[in-house]
Amino acid sequence: MSHVDLTKALASWSTDPDELARVSVDRSGVSPAGLPDLVVFAKDVDDVQRTVAYAAAHNVPVVPRGAGSGVAGGAVAGAGTIVLDLSGLNRIVEIRSDEAIAVVEPGVITAHLDEAAAAHGLRYAPDPASAAISTIGGNIATNAGGLRCVKYGVTRDAVLAVDAVLGDGTLVSTGRRTLKGVTGYDLTSLLVGSEGTLGVVVGATLRLSPLPVSTATASAFFATAEDAVAAVTAVQRRGLRPSTAELLDQATLVAIDEADGGDLHTRGEVFLLLQTDGYGAEAEMAVAEQVIRPLATSVETTTDPDVAARLVATRRAALPAIERHGRVLIEDIAVPRSRLAETVTAVASIAAATGVRIFVFAHAGDGNLHPIVLADSAPAEQVDRAVAAIFEHAIAVGGTLTGEHGVGVLKRPWLAAELGDPVLDLHRRIKAVFDPAGILNPGKAIG
Amino acid sequence: MSHVDLTKALASWSTDPDELARVSVDRSGVSPAGLPDLVVFAKDVDDVQRTVAYAAAHNVPVVPRGAGSGVAGGAVAGAGTIVLDLSGLNRIVEIRSDEAIAVVEPGVITAHLDEAAAAHGLRYAPDPASAAISTIGGNIATNAGGLRCVKYGVTRDAVLAVDAVLGDGTLVSTGRRTLKGVTGYDLTSLLVGSEGTLGVVVGATLRLSPLPVSTATASAFFATAEDAVAAVTAVQRRGLRPSTAELLDQATLVAIDEADGGDLHTRGEVFLLLQTDGYGAEAEMAVAEQVIRPLATSVETTTDPDVAARLVATRRAALPAIERHGRVLIEDIAVPRSRLAETVTAVASIAAATGVRIFVFAHAGDGNLHPIVLADSAPAEQVDRAVAAIFEHAIAVGGTLTGEHGVGVLKRPWLAAELGDPVLDLHRRIKAVFDPAGILNPGKAIG
Ligand SMILES: Cc1cc2nc3c(=O)[nH]c(=O)nc-3n(C[C@H](O)[C@H](O)[C@H](O)COP(=O)(O)OP(=O)(O)OC[C@H]3O[C@@H](n4cnc5c(N)ncnc54)[C@H](O)[C@@H]3O)c2cc1C
Ligand SMILES: Cc1cc2nc3c(=O)[nH]c(=O)nc-3n(C[C@H](O)[C@H](O)[C@H](O)COP(=O)(O)OP(=O)(O)OC[C@H]3O[C@@H](n4cnc5c(N)ncnc54)[C@H](O)[C@@H]3O)c2cc1C
Repeated sequence: MSHVDLTKALASWSTDPDELARVSVDRSGVSPAGLPDLVVFAKDVDDVQRTVAYAAAHNVPVVPRGAGSGVAGGAVAGAGTIVLDLSGLNRIVEIRSDEAIAVVEPGVITAHLDEAAAAHGLRYAPDPASAAISTIGGNIATNAGGLRCVKYGVTRDAVLAVDAVLGDGTLVSTGRRTLKGVTGYDLTSLLVGSEGTLGVVVGATLRLSPLPVSTATASAFFATAEDAVAAVTAVQRRGLRPSTAELLDQATLVAIDEADGGDLHTRGEVFLLLQTDGYGAEAEMAVAEQVIRPLATSVETTTDPDVAARLVATRRAALPAIERHGRVLIEDIAVPRSRLAETVTAVASIAAATGVRIFVFAHAGDGNLHPIVLADSAPAEQVDRAVAAIFEHAIAVGGTLTGEHGVGVLKRPWLAAELGDPVLDLHRRIKAVFDPAGILNPGKAIG
Repeated sequence: MSHVDLTKALASWSTDPDELARVSVDRSGVSPAGLPDLVVFAKDVDDVQRTVAYAAAHNVPVVPRGAGSGVAGGAVAGAGTIVLDLSGLNRIVEIRSDEAIAVVEPGVITAHLDEAAAAHGLRYAPDPASAAISTIGGNIATNAGGLRCVKYGVTRDAVLAVDAVLGDGTLVSTGRRTLKGVTGYDLTSLLVGSEGTLGVVVGATLRLSPLPVSTATASAFFATAEDAVAAVTAVQRRGLRPSTAELLDQATLVAIDEADGGDLHTRGEVFLLLQTDGYGAEAEMAVAEQVIRPLATSVETTTDPDVAARLVATRRAALPAIERHGRVLIEDIAVPRSRLAETVTAVASIAAATGVRIFVFAHAGDGNLHPIVLADSAPAEQVDRAVAAIFEHAIAVGGTLTGEHGVGVLKRPWLAAELGDPVLDLHRRIKAVFDPAGILNPGKAIG
């Protein structure tokens, strides 16, 4: 379809096959069938409304797109679709230090907002490892998490209000500029994490938080994952509130060392990066160190920001380092905190039983694991078996398919197993309220 | 209607007029027209499903009820309704210290959960001033706030999962036991704050948090509300994270002194209670004190828990002390933090212009004010004018009708002014998804 009735009203769009190919994929490795019809580069909210209204009238699926850094296939777009690229709507409209809020367009890069906030002594707390490339709109659509979430919450906790274009092209504003408010239903939280299936996010009011006055960092090594998890549990049970608690397994340490010439993997089996922050950072870390020491093979603490930054950078290097070994499937299960240790063990057993190479790192403080499956390390059916076994385990222990990446297209087959049919049915009926024509990212998130 | 087809299947219910009168009202002062037909005292989830399914089949409105401590008229029930009293479902099913979660029935009293958590070194953070009487189900249905919310979040932030009976009697479970998770839409947040109009909450999984190791408390007096608000703003701008920041105006101080024989009102015009907590509580308070001192007429700080407890009790005594003066309308507006000072001033001007007595206390840290209007202090039309003017001001400065109490029946006339018609329409269509027969608390929250 040529969509000329649409494009004649737009400032920027493309049907160039290279452009279409670029915007048809994200970082999931999913290959769509065919190329989209068109990519619209939205320059204002009118462009978004116009595109969605046109799509509703002509029954054409619209795939909202931020930076395409998603890893669940949420932004993947095949033949017969229109890609609605929001990355050009990238203005930080306002930062108010006295209210600690920011008003932004959806295409703002996460890290850019954080930097702009820093100029006011503030920060944007949700910090996905992809912050340098992902957009706020994509973060909202996936309810992105990150390293600081264990203390400061996920994207949902930072979103006060959203402007969204619904499936018929209507623009609505949900939420408010106040920190509290209970007038009406929480449509803002409903839009957060809806992966572009309920509305296109065209603006957001976000809560900022103060930059912590000081941060203390511990790096600890353990003989087993059980010991490392026991340390995190002990820290939390002791009433400490770490701002980061990241676990990396041996395979991940090896991959990082191979990439950067370091020696982490020689220093222990499992690595834990723990941080505390605020006025009591050092006092809190002193207690954490006491709690960790009996379980660890070594612990070092520091308040030197450069050393801490290097350690955090090491953690952020995990995924790229693993990706050097080949195509990866990035899993993202979350389990109740008390089931974390057995889950790390279960993933290792699954890897052994299927012969599939799996690396594990985890936001250990909130029970969110990333088993990274090397997709070509074994025959496809073994890889499928391994992935299925990981999901089955997560659901069996009361966990979830996805802690922060979203369902996209990749996790749809498991949706009913987690949600159950009555709840899934409720989802479909809610979707119909927001998107009667069913044109907003159909086939994603809720199947 | 006699509802005998329903009652023959129930263990506990009443049609006694005294019982019906008791359960027909809450703490809003709203008088319903006539008595409900029946009150059902639910003893298990089956009772709830049976009652709701019956009501749907016979088109009878059901009014879910916790403790009836609500102040917006959400639990008020008139002729032709069935009151569904959840207060008997009051078991704390499970507290897991290693996961820091609790599983509860809806009738658990808020303070009981907090006490039970304390035995594990944990607490239930949301602490409405009514914690000693309100239920968790009511807190969830209203998204209740409290003194600690400024640092620890409102009820929504503590609710991981909900079991709810929808308007056709179906039982659904939303959310999960994990701290993070993005499978599906956030139906849990949608149910939180829905005031019994989308589902009856019959169970919840709640996040607990560690008891802070130490708390520091400041009591400060100011010559004007502007100065007090400026102090709170300065504290937050400085990057401090107070765990409590409560402001009381002169009228409120007088009322408290009259009730308990104290001398607060002689010590300054406006009182601010500020707390910091955690490992850095004292260091953080030392900075807060520096920031506050130039603006205050006096500041005292303490780490003595008894002194702190007395100060917090003073704050909690504000509403009962005011209620000694007569029937009150408890308003609950929230405004952007930067508009708090002018809002306090605006309320004073409204009181002066209308001749209505209005007391003000506020969760100043998050811009949530409680103007308490003495209902018989002026002719009814003046009182109406004053209340209208307060709401108009709130909306005009980008604020909201209700920060934490809910819309109930009292704030319905203002709903469209805040939400706008397209968003209100979206609410009605969502309501129809959850409650096709329209029998769950009709006429409340969304009108
Ligand atoms: C190296 C790397 C590290 C990562 N680390 C993390 C991490 O730590 N935590 C984490 O949560 N994720 C992480 N991710 C995943 C990804 O970055 C996030 O999901 C991010 O939120 C996606 O943002 P995006 O702008 O790239 O969105 P896209 O990939 O473009 O889109 C993601 C989804 O959101 C929808 N969408 C995008 N913009 C809008 C909009 N304006 N309105 C409506 N829907 C929209 C799309 O349709 C799609 O469903 C990582 C990815 C990589 C490659
Ligand atoms: C002295 C005093 C101080 C207060 N302080 C605060 C405060 O600091 N912060 C604050 O937020 N509120 C405060 N309140 C208001 C009130 O206590 C809260 O709104 C509380 O959450 C109501 O709980 P409840 O169990 O009494 O609910 P109810 O009053 O019985 O009901 C409130 C609403 O919730 C619905 N509901 C109740 N239970 C359920 C259920 N299980 N499923 C579905 N719907 C249900 C009802 O239909 C109604 O709409 C105060 C009230 C008083 C009297």
